Amino acid sequence: MKKPYNQMTKDELLTLKAALLEEYKEEQAKGLNLNMARGKPGLSQLELAMPMLDVINSSSDMKTILGTDTRNYGDLDGIGECRHLMADMLEVAKDNVIVYGNSSLNIMYDTISRSYSHGVNGSTPWCKLDKVKFLCPVPGYDRHFAITQFFGIEMINIPLNSDGPDMDLVAKYVESDPAIKGIWCVPKYSNPTGISYSDEVVRKFAALKPAADDFRIFWDNAYCIHHLYDDKQDKILNIIDECAKAGNPDMVYVFASTSKISFPGSGVSVLASSLTNIDYILKQLTVQTIGHDKINQLRHSRFFKDIDGLKAHMKKHGDILRPKFEAVLAELNTELAGLEIGSWIEPRGGYFISFNALEGCAKAIVAKCKECGVILTGAGATYPYGKDPLDSNIRIAPSFPTPEEMAAAAKIFVLCVKLVSVEKLLGEN
Amino acid sequence: MKKPYNQMTKDELLTLKAALLEEYKEEQAKGLNLNMARGKPGLSQLELAMPMLDVINSSSDMKTILGTDTRNYGDLDGIGECRHLMADMLEVAKDNVIVYGNSSLNIMYDTISRSYSHGVNGSTPWCKLDKVKFLCPVPGYDRHFAITQFFGIEMINIPLNSDGPDMDLVAKYVESDPAIKGIWCVPKYSNPTGISYSDEVVRKFAALKPAADDFRIFWDNAYCIHHLYDDKQDKILNIIDECAKAGNPDMVYVFASTSKISFPGSGVSVLASSLTNIDYILKQLTVQTIGHDKINQLRHSRFFKDIDGLKAHMKKHGDILRPKFEAVLAELNTELAGLEIGSWIEPRGGYFISFNALEGCAKAIVAKCKECGVILTGAGATYPYGKDPLDSNIRIAPSFPTPEEMAAAAKIFVLCVKLVSVEKLLGEN
Repeated sequence: MKKPYNQMTKDELLTLKAALLEEYKEEQAKGLNLNMARGKPGLSQLELAMPMLDVINSSSDMKTILGTDTRNYGDLDGIGECRHLMADMLEVAKDNVIVYGNSSLNIMYDTISRSYSHGVNGSTPWCKLDKVKFLCPVPGYDRHFAITQFFGIEMINIPLNSDGPDMDLVAKYVESDPAIKGIWCVPKYSNPTGISYSDEVVRKFAALKPAADDFRIFWDNAYCIHHLYDDKQDKILNIIDECAKAGNPDMVYVFASTSKISFPGSGVSVLASSLTNIDYILKQLTVQTIGHDKINQLRHSRFFKDIDGLKAHMKKHGDILRPKFEAVLAELNTELAGLEIGSWIEPRGGYFISFNALEGCAKAIVAKCKECGVILTGAGATYPYGKDPLDSNIRIAPSFPTPEEMAAAAKIFVLCVKLVSVEKLLGEN
Repeated sequence: MKKPYNQMTKDELLTLKAALLEEYKEEQAKGLNLNMARGKPGLSQLELAMPMLDVINSSSDMKTILGTDTRNYGDLDGIGECRHLMADMLEVAKDNVIVYGNSSLNIMYDTISRSYSHGVNGSTPWCKLDKVKFLCPVPGYDRHFAITQFFGIEMINIPLNSDGPDMDLVAKYVESDPAIKGIWCVPKYSNPTGISYSDEVVRKFAALKPAADDFRIFWDNAYCIHHLYDDKQDKILNIIDECAKAGNPDMVYVFASTSKISFPGSGVSVLASSLTNIDYILKQLTVQTIGHDKINQLRHSRFFKDIDGLKAHMKKHGDILRPKFEAVLAELNTELAGLEIGSWIEPRGGYFISFNALEGCAKAIVAKCKECGVILTGAGATYPYGKDPLDSNIRIAPSFPTPEEMAAAAKIFVLCVKLVSVEKLLGEN
């Protein structure tokens, strides 16, 4: 049994610090250059989808099942077979989805932007209101927060527990304040903590009685089929069904993409919502574009074929990612368990491991890692305005490096955690 | 020499009408179904780019010249070689362009939307102003007008002459009214009249002294290399250069795409502007998306190779389109010249032939054509709010039907023009 750092005497801490510093210098001398900053698929993952590039070639039949020539204008809501595939992925009906271009982030941006300029299904445009607020379960995804910040929307932190956001707090805000217009959610294998929302949490979402008619749940199901294990897979309730059952059919927008299934930046993205919402959105979308890239939609449909094809493909991703996650988790467990200088959750899917350091230590750990050649997501990035009130959360993205690089990087990470924690306990930072 | 209709006696007109009605019934009996409504490339044009689909396959090197892996996130402004290609197409420097996804219309929408929500390079957001106005050279492109209408921007008609918009009127508005924030232009092979702006007009644009700092020229160079002839090609001055020379470097946004070069809906699109504007736009774009489809950018770069490749490819499009345009023009010249019931310009490029009927006749002609199986763009569509004050302009899109179908459709069109004109002169409509 290791001795927790907070039970050490000053002398013990000083001795420990000297040893850690020595070790740090040795690591620094290796001149590593490893990037764990973004949820970027690794090279072997990119290889998985290469055969997709042969599926459509100059001798292909370019027509959809329903007869649309994918090479020409048309099908604003996406080609039938791709809508079908994406609908199956999100466990909704085909008519409830629009398939877009390559970026679900762009759909989310557009959704906020349209609400800002034109309101939601006829409500007052948000730009005409004195104040618009969003709830942000934290830690969360920096690019979500960047969108709401860009539109001057006030963001309110909501603690994200191991089963989802603090729903009492969510309900309190949403049901009392008409300025609250939305909440950002990553309901499955959450970015960055890796947790999935419990059935109870999903049902509480669906049962909300918002003070604002134009309140919407922004349900970014980015990791819906992104499992790390065959035998341990999270499953979440279908929010669209639950909202309909609860009498709130129009309260949720669901987003997803194949960025981490086929190719990041060259996939297809999807929005799912009630028929009423889809109808409103298509009316606006027809002003914005003539349509999205249907050849790429056809390429995706023919390569993956159906939901089983998608799932089989995701198993290959899981097989590649699992050792990388396990390399980090092994290091955390071996080196940090029992020291009481940090906590983490072992995710079953997604792209991140979230680490909570001692209060006031996150920035210093990230900086120390950087000086040792390991780039992490900037501390604070997982909070609105880049401000982690406790300066505690660090997001680790294990996908891009190889498992060996990941092990080396994790070794440096735990070393930096130890060093900064000792300095903290010594009152040096 | 034919006798102009307006010099005919009532009896002559009645006799003519009876003959025309007979002919109309015969045509109607054929049960044709031809669509000349949209500028949609025809099947043989789509075939031209099919070899592009072989250029990238599972054994391709997926890296750009500068080493970006096109399969992963990155290169928000587009991959180097595609920026280079698109910059050459627009005759600007590579640093002045951003390559986007598949739709230039979407870039225009985003540009207006961003100006509405955030202003232009730091100006007051248009949504905070009492009134925002745009100048719209008419006849023009319905999808431009739809964007400004969607954002509640008041549109003011500006006559489009054979050398470009009435620049005295443009200057009068732009230089006196700070609510005028932009003007829609299709400077080359204009949609729908086919005219190109003269050097004098381009220089007058560049020399504008707008009352509003955030006034911008929306220069949709959609048909920049879309010639019908080898020997008769329009050339327009470079608006970005001219604006810089005139001390207005930031006054113009240039848009284009390969929708009518490679595949409509699966091409790449481009925005060109001053470095200052590009810089502002990229700061916003990084909130909106992680990047556009780089694999498709690579596919385009490798297929077309360089500007000479693009031009050689466009010659093939011209060869396919020319007979279709000539079928319409031959019919117009043979059947309508001298009758003084309509006028048209013979375009050297682009996608449209614009016909001006007698005042008050456009809607009736389009309706008559429809009853005879020929679908034209709705009358009025070429004007803001769908309102052609003279009910005179009709846009003919000859690209989609075959030359034979086009000849058949043109025959019906001139018949309907004659019939409606006779009825007009008889005071029947």
